[in-house]
Amino acid sequence: MPAQAKIGVLGASGYTGAELVRLLLRHPRVEIVLLTADRRAGKSMADVFPQFAPYKLPALAAIDDVDWATIGLDLAFCALPHGTTQKIVKDLWTRAPHVKIIDLSADFRLADPAAYARWYGRAHAAPELQQHAVYGLTEIYRAQIKMARLLANPGCYPTGAQLALIPLLKAEATDPDEIVIDAKSGMTGAGRGLREDMLFAEVSEGFHAYGVGRHRHMAELDQEFSHAAGREVIVTFTPHLVPMNRGILSTIYARGVQAAPAPDLHALLAKAYADEPFVHVLPFGTVPQTRHVRGSNMTFIGVAADRVAGRAIIVAALDNLTKGASGQAVQNMNLMLGFPETLGLEQVALFP
Amino acid sequence: MPAQAKIGVLGASGYTGAELVRLLLRHPRVEIVLLTADRRAGKSMADVFPQFAPYKLPALAAIDDVDWATIGLDLAFCALPHGTTQKIVKDLWTRAPHVKIIDLSADFRLADPAAYARWYGRAHAAPELQQHAVYGLTEIYRAQIKMARLLANPGCYPTGAQLALIPLLKAEATDPDEIVIDAKSGMTGAGRGLREDMLFAEVSEGFHAYGVGRHRHMAELDQEFSHAAGREVIVTFTPHLVPMNRGILSTIYARGVQAAPAPDLHALLAKAYADEPFVHVLPFGTVPQTRHVRGSNMTFIGVAADRVAGRAIIVAALDNLTKGASGQAVQNMNLMLGFPETLGLEQVALFP
Amino acid sequence: MPAQAKIGVLGASGYTGAELVRLLLRHPRVEIVLLTADRRAGKSMADVFPQFAPYKLPALAAIDDVDWATIGLDLAFCALPHGTTQKIVKDLWTRAPHVKIIDLSADFRLADPAAYARWYGRAHAAPELQQHAVYGLTEIYRAQIKMARLLANPGCYPTGAQLALIPLLKAEATDPDEIVIDAKSGMTGAGRGLREDMLFAEVSEGFHAYGVGRHRHMAELDQEFSHAAGREVIVTFTPHLVPMNRGILSTIYARGVQAAPAPDLHALLAKAYADEPFVHVLPFGTVPQTRHVRGSNMTFIGVAADRVAGRAIIVAALDNLTKGASGQAVQNMNLMLGFPETLGLEQVALFP
Amino acid sequence: MPAQAKIGVLGASGYTGAELVRLLLRHPRVEIVLLTADRRAGKSMADVFPQFAPYKLPALAAIDDVDWATIGLDLAFCALPHGTTQKIVKDLWTRAPHVKIIDLSADFRLADPAAYARWYGRAHAAPELQQHAVYGLTEIYRAQIKMARLLANPGCYPTGAQLALIPLLKAEATDPDEIVIDAKSGMTGAGRGLREDMLFAEVSEGFHAYGVGRHRHMAELDQEFSHAAGREVIVTFTPHLVPMNRGILSTIYARGVQAAPAPDLHALLAKAYADEPFVHVLPFGTVPQTRHVRGSNMTFIGVAADRVAGRAIIVAALDNLTKGASGQAVQNMNLMLGFPETLGLEQVALFP
Repeated sequence: MPAQAKIGVLGASGYTGAELVRLLLRHPRVEIVLLTADRRAGKSMADVFPQFAPYKLPALAAIDDVDWATIGLDLAFCALPHGTTQKIVKDLWTRAPHVKIIDLSADFRLADPAAYARWYGRAHAAPELQQHAVYGLTEIYRAQIKMARLLANPGCYPTGAQLALIPLLKAEATDPDEIVIDAKSGMTGAGRGLREDMLFAEVSEGFHAYGVGRHRHMAELDQEFSHAAGREVIVTFTPHLVPMNRGILSTIYARGVQAAPAPDLHALLAKAYADEPFVHVLPFGTVPQTRHVRGSNMTFIGVAADRVAGRAIIVAALDNLTKGASGQAVQNMNLMLGFPETLGLEQVALFP
Repeated sequence: MPAQAKIGVLGASGYTGAELVRLLLRHPRVEIVLLTADRRAGKSMADVFPQFAPYKLPALAAIDDVDWATIGLDLAFCALPHGTTQKIVKDLWTRAPHVKIIDLSADFRLADPAAYARWYGRAHAAPELQQHAVYGLTEIYRAQIKMARLLANPGCYPTGAQLALIPLLKAEATDPDEIVIDAKSGMTGAGRGLREDMLFAEVSEGFHAYGVGRHRHMAELDQEFSHAAGREVIVTFTPHLVPMNRGILSTIYARGVQAAPAPDLHALLAKAYADEPFVHVLPFGTVPQTRHVRGSNMTFIGVAADRVAGRAIIVAALDNLTKGASGQAVQNMNLMLGFPETLGLEQVALFP
Repeated sequence: MPAQAKIGVLGASGYTGAELVRLLLRHPRVEIVLLTADRRAGKSMADVFPQFAPYKLPALAAIDDVDWATIGLDLAFCALPHGTTQKIVKDLWTRAPHVKIIDLSADFRLADPAAYARWYGRAHAAPELQQHAVYGLTEIYRAQIKMARLLANPGCYPTGAQLALIPLLKAEATDPDEIVIDAKSGMTGAGRGLREDMLFAEVSEGFHAYGVGRHRHMAELDQEFSHAAGREVIVTFTPHLVPMNRGILSTIYARGVQAAPAPDLHALLAKAYADEPFVHVLPFGTVPQTRHVRGSNMTFIGVAADRVAGRAIIVAALDNLTKGASGQAVQNMNLMLGFPETLGLEQVALFP
Repeated sequence: MPAQAKIGVLGASGYTGAELVRLLLRHPRVEIVLLTADRRAGKSMADVFPQFAPYKLPALAAIDDVDWATIGLDLAFCALPHGTTQKIVKDLWTRAPHVKIIDLSADFRLADPAAYARWYGRAHAAPELQQHAVYGLTEIYRAQIKMARLLANPGCYPTGAQLALIPLLKAEATDPDEIVIDAKSGMTGAGRGLREDMLFAEVSEGFHAYGVGRHRHMAELDQEFSHAAGREVIVTFTPHLVPMNRGILSTIYARGVQAAPAPDLHALLAKAYADEPFVHVLPFGTVPQTRHVRGSNMTFIGVAADRVAGRAIIVAALDNLTKGASGQAVQNMNLMLGFPETLGLEQVALFP
C-alpha cells in the first residue's frame, strides 16, 4: 500500500473519465500519471473538458503508446466503452502484473461466460479473467474487493436497485417474483458518443422510456438478485430518460410477506446501512430526490407504504456518475489500495 | 346549438385558464366574452400572460361582478382551484340556467359524496349537483357528454391511465389486482400557485416522486376502473415530477391472462381507438414520448412485452394541459354545443 | 394562384423541415405532396419525427428520385444545409420552371457574389440566380416578395435584429457605428446534425457565447443594415446558446441622436409595425421574453431607456423555427401564391 | 487565529446559506456551531435542505434566541435578505465585539451613505459601520480584507464584471465611457423567496432581460469602476435570466485605445491574474462557459477581438453561488482568520 499511488485513467475523454479526474485531482493520496483517449491523443485534458484548464494534468495519450513497464502505475481505471475493454484488460493483466484494474464497463460484471454471450450476442474475449473479477458493489462485497486485482464496477442502474433490494432479498422479506423497478436516469448515463437521440433538442422538455422489456442491465440484476435470494430472480425493469444531466431514481414496487410490509422493509434497510458512509436511509414515509445527492457519492433510500395491501414502495436515488460509476470506483480503489474508504469522496451534494 | 357560442373562462390567470384561451382564441365558432381572475381583476389578460398581448380579449373581471343575466353565456369553463368551485358552480347552476358548465377541477368528478368526503376530508358543498355531473373522459362517455349540462373534466393523470387501461379492464384482459401505474408529470401540473417546492431552482436538474402511496387522483381511478371492471379495483399509483413544463407519461405494468399477453393487449387498444381522432396507438413494441404530443390534444399509447412471463408494459403519453385538461375540455365543449368534435383542436404537436 | 397549392419540402428530416410540415399540415390551402430526405429515403415522416404518426403524409423520397415534370409542384421549400442548396436550386430553376422556390438556407441571401465568397470561402455555384433571389424579410420587402420566383428566407438571428433596427436606421434615428447586438438562441438553431457540443449533457445547465467577433450571420446584417442606412454599417454581434429548444432574444444597444433617445425609438418602431400581424411592439419600458412567442410567428419588440445618456436598449424576441425560419417561409409562401398573408400562421404562442 | 474556528451562518435556509454550509462542512479548520433561520427555527437543516441529512449540524435557531456572549463565535456569515441585515450587523458589532462578520447582502457594499439612500430609497440604518466595512472582492482588496472585522461580500454580477474590467480600467486601456455589460444569470441568483415569476413553468424554456436600464447592482459597479479609473464611470448593464440553476456569464463590450485592442487587453488580464488561484484567463480568442466553473470558486475570463475596429469582447464566467457569493465569502473568511486562502475551496467544477 503506497503512501501516494500512481493512477491511470484509460478513456479520459468520456463522462465517467472526467468524473474520475474530478475526484482523483483532489484525492490526497493519489497522483494522476496517465490519461488516455485514443481519438484525442496529443490534446490536453482541458481541450476535451475545459473545466480542467487551471490544473496540471498529463496530456492525453493513445493507449498503444503507453509503456506499461516504465510508467509504474499502481492502479488503472478503464472507463472505455462496453465491449472494447476485454482486450485491453487482458493485455494489462499479463503485461503489467503489478497494476490493479478497476473496469467501469459492463465487460467483467457477469461471472458466467454463457450469460455474457446470451446478453451481448458474442463470446467473451477474456473468459479466463472473468473468474478473477470481483463485482464491486462496495457495501455488499467489501471483503472481496479488498483482495481484488481486477474489479468490475457495477452499472449505474444496478447500483441503486441492488442497494435497495439486496438486504430485503437476503432476509426473504420480499417476494422475488413480484418486483417491478421503474428507473429514471439523467442524460449523462448515455455517455458522450454522438447519437441523434441525445441532442439537446431531442431530449429536453420531454420524457420517455427506452429498452422496454429488455435492457442489458437486467443481466447484472439477475445475477446479483438471484445470488442474494438463493434462487432464480427475474425482475421487471424499465429505464426512462429525464431531461437532467445527473441522477438516477429507482421507484421499486415490492410485495412483502405481510399485509403491511413497508415498516419492516424500512427497518431492515435502516439496519443494513446504519454504519455505511455512503448509503443513507431516510425516515419512514420520506422519499429521496436525485438533486440532493448530485455530485456526491451518496445513495438515499426511502420506503413508503402502498395503499394496496401487501405492497411497499421503495425509492433509491444516486448520482449515476458518482456512486453509479466513478465515485464507487474510487471507493473501491480506496479499499484495493488500503486507504480509508471515504478518502477523496467527502464532497457534499451540490444543490441547488 | 348556436352558430357562434359565447364562452366564459372562470379562473383565467392559471395555466389551464391560459391554455383554454389559447385554444378558444382560434376556435372558429366561439367568442370569449368573459375572463375572470379575482386577484387580478381589472388587469388585462396580457398582464398575466404576455403571450396574449397581440389579441383582443375582455379584461379580467372579479367573479362577483359578473351579471349572469345579461352576459348571455352559452358555456362557462371553471378553471378554479380544487375546492373553491363547488359554491361557484352551484351559484351558476341556479342563477344562469341556460349556461352549460365544464369544470376542470376535481370537485365534481366523484359521483359518490361519501368518496368525496373520504378523499377530501370534508363534505361536498353541492351534493345535489354531483348526480348531474357527467364525467368527461370523452372517448368513454361521448354519448352522455352530448347531453350534459354540468361536465366534470377528468384529471391529467387519470386521463392517460384510463385511456390505456379501460378497454383492457372492460375486456377482462388484464388482472385488476396487479396493476402498477408509475406516472411522471411536467411542472405545469402543479398549477401557478406560489410554492417554494415549485421554484425553478428547487425542481430543475432533478427528479422525484411525491404523494407516494396516497394521492387524490386515486379516487378518480378507483371509481372509473371499478366501473369498467364491474368490480372493485384498487391500483398502485405513484406520481413523479419531471423538469419539463408539459407532458405526462404513464408507465403501466399489467398482468394478462396468458403467458405472453402483450400482443393481445395491443390489439385490444388498437381496435378500441381505431377511429378516435385524439388517441393514437403506436405499432407493437414502440413506446411514446411526451414531447411528441406537446401542445396537441393527442394521446399516444404503446404496448411492449415484458420478459417476465404474463406481464405487459403499456405506456401512455399526453400533454397534461391539453388532452389532460383544457384540450379535452374544449373537445367536450364541442360535443356539448353540437360542434364537430375536433374543431379548434387540430394543432400538430410542437416538437422540437 | 391555385385554390389548393401543391407543396414540396426538400430536407424534411431536419428541424426547419419538421416545422414546415407542422404548419403546412394545418394550412387550409396547401397539400404536401413531396417530402425529401436523402439519408432517410423510404422511411415515413413518423420514423424521423414521431409527432406526425397520426397524419397522412408522403413517404420520404431521395431528391434524385423526384420526377419534377410529373409531380406538379407549385412551390418547393428548400430546408437543406447551407452550401448544398445551390446546386439543387439551380437544377430546379431550369428543370421545373413553374415551381416557385423558398430557400431557408443562407445560400441566396447575399446579393453580392463577392460577399458570398468572402464569408463562405468559396465561389457561389449559381451566381446567375443570386440576382433573381428576393430577400424574404416579409415586413420590409413585401412588394418584391409577391413577385418573386426564388426567395431567400432570412436567417433566424438576422430576422430579429433587422426588425428591431431597420426602421431606426431608415429614419436615421440611431448611430450606425454604435450598434451592439448581444443575441441568445435556443438549441434548435444549431440544427439536427450530429455534434458532440450539442449533446444534452454538453449544453444543458450552462450558458456560453460562440462565434465571438466573427459569425456568418454578420454578412446578412451588413448587407441589409447598409441598405437601410444608405451607407456601410458594420455592427458588433455576439451569439450565445441558451439551454432551451426555441427562441432568440436580441438585446440591442443603440446610441440615438438625442440625450434621451429611447422614447423616440419606441415611437418609430410602434408606428412602423402598427398594422403588422406578426410584429408587436410592447409598451415603452417593457421588454419581451422568448417563451411568450414560442411556436407562434410573432416577433415581440420592447424599448427601454438606458441610464447612460444617449443610449437606448431594444429587445426583440421571436421563435427561431417559426418567424426565424419556417413560419416566415410560410408567410412568404402566402404572398408568393396570393393567399392571405396570415393563413395557417394564426397559432397563439404555447406558454407555459 | 484559532486552530479551529467557530462559525455561524445567519440565514441558513436560503441558497447562499446552503452553499456556505456545503463548503464549511468540508473545511478542515472550521466548525459550524450556529445556523439561524427565523421562520424555520426548531427544524433541522435537513428539513430545509435534504442534502444535509447524512451530516451532523446544529438545529436551526431564531436569531433573537442566540446568546452571543456564550456561543463563542469567531466569525458570522450574514446570508440574510438585502435590507434586513443592517440592524443585525449593528447588534452583533456592539454585543459580540470579538466576532468578525462577513455580510453577503448588499447592505454594506456602498461606502457612501448618500449613494445607499439614492439606490435603495431609504437611509442606511447603520451608517457609522459603513466606514468600517471592507469591500470583499478578494483579488483586488486582499490586504484590506486581512484586517477587516466587517466585510461586505460583493454581488454576483459585480464580481464577474469587476474581475474582467478593473485591471483594464486601472491601466487606462479601455474607454470608461464605452462599456456595455450584457450579463446572464442562472435562477439561484433570485434567491429562494416565493415569487410567481420564479416558478419552474414561468422561467424554463425561455430567456429574458430584466431590470433593463436600471438595476441595483449598478451602484456597486459605479463605485468600484470609478475607484479603479480614478474618475466617474457609468456603464451600461443589462441582466438576463437563463433557465439553469447556477452560473453568470458577462459579455462585455469595450473600446480600447488602439485599432485592435483585444490582444493587449488579454495580456493585461493574463498578467494581472497569473498567480491567482481562482481567476483563470483562457488563451486569446477562447471564451468560457458557465458550466465549466459550476460548483467551483473559479472565474474563467476570455478575450476575443471584435471585427469592429477599436473594440474587444471580454467574457467572464463564474458560479453565482460560489465565487459570486458563498465561495468568495469563504475565501475572505480564510484571509480574515489567517488561514491559507484556498482552504476548503479546492473543489473542481462539476461538469457534466
